[in-house]
Amino acid sequence: MRQLEQRISREATVLPGNILKIDGFLNHQVDIAFCEEMAEEFYRHFAKTAPTKILTVEASGIVLAAMTARRFSLPMLFAKKAKSDNIEGGLYRSEIFSYTYNKKATLLVAQNRLDAGERVLVIDDFLARGEALRGLIDIVSQAGATLCGVGIAVEKGFQGGGDALRAQGVDLLSLAIIDSMQPNEIVFRELD
Amino acid sequence: MRQLEQRISREATVLPGNILKIDGFLNHQVDIAFCEEMAEEFYRHFAKTAPTKILTVEASGIVLAAMTARRFSLPMLFAKKAKSDNIEGGLYRSEIFSYTYNKKATLLVAQNRLDAGERVLVIDDFLARGEALRGLIDIVSQAGATLCGVGIAVEKGFQGGGDALRAQGVDLLSLAIIDSMQPNEIVFRELD
Repeated sequence: MRQLEQRISREATVLPGNILKIDGFLNHQVDIAFCEEMAEEFYRHFAKTAPTKILTVEASGIVLAAMTARRFSLPMLFAKKAKSDNIEGGLYRSEIFSYTYNKKATLLVAQNRLDAGERVLVIDDFLARGEALRGLIDIVSQAGATLCGVGIAVEKGFQGGGDALRAQGVDLLSLAIIDSMQPNEIVFRELD
Repeated sequence: MRQLEQRISREATVLPGNILKIDGFLNHQVDIAFCEEMAEEFYRHFAKTAPTKILTVEASGIVLAAMTARRFSLPMLFAKKAKSDNIEGGLYRSEIFSYTYNKKATLLVAQNRLDAGERVLVIDDFLARGEALRGLIDIVSQAGATLCGVGIAVEKGFQGGGDALRAQGVDLLSLAIIDSMQPNEIVFRELD
């Protein structure tokens, strides 16, 4: 998505440790109208897969997932990252490693919110090594639900998570794929 | 908002420790269209206060804040709850105590995302003792910005946080106020 690449080039900051800070329109301050445009791209690509639910994980993917759910007129479900007293018993759990926070985390989804017959479209803002997605896809599988595909705003292609998912046959749409990044140069992969 | 009270009565679960679980349409699975209806109520009440930014805190208030931001055609900003490597330096910080998680938390907002001239409408899903709001309002004050008001979906009135804010003169709109709750009976405060 050319407009996303342009905004990343203009507004994002590359920090040490392969961190890409997009806190002006995606990860802290959020441009809602632009998220709707990205959701439109997801709709165009995934409408034919007939999802019944949009799944993401807290926190920074929530707006994108919500706008996608709005476009599809579907409920949105967000996995929680730690045990909260607000969700008792009956949980699907998946352990992941968060490289952003450099610690393990547990993704939680209430079992009564994800049925075996459902068709799940997973949406998230970032894809790097793919740990969060691995956890979400694991939960979809635990529920006996079907994965329709994965929609991502920004894939850090050089970290390999996206290509690993593609090799597994996952229908993955990343709106921008970064092949390399330095403080003053972000190189995008050519998209179809 | 009558429809919100009805959905709470029908779908919410009261758990020990004054926990109200609304994970079917607000706090885990989210009904986006219903969040838009709530956002419309916020718009009706706060449009005259001319906000320039919508502020919330991760994670479960994000959809409601996003839909409110969408209705106002404004950017949405969400405070983060812990130090992430994704936001370096230049932070407003406010320490709060999370009764849900029974531990202290730090709210963080990047200083360059909140200017002194801004008019901030704070949106969140729940208001109990008001700790999260105290932190957000503190950050608005640190920035030298103006607080337009606070919009809340569900206020647990018996925990006092809302009435304390009203006593301070904050323009607080709660769409449903619970005066008491037991596993089989939720009593709402009569609203104008």
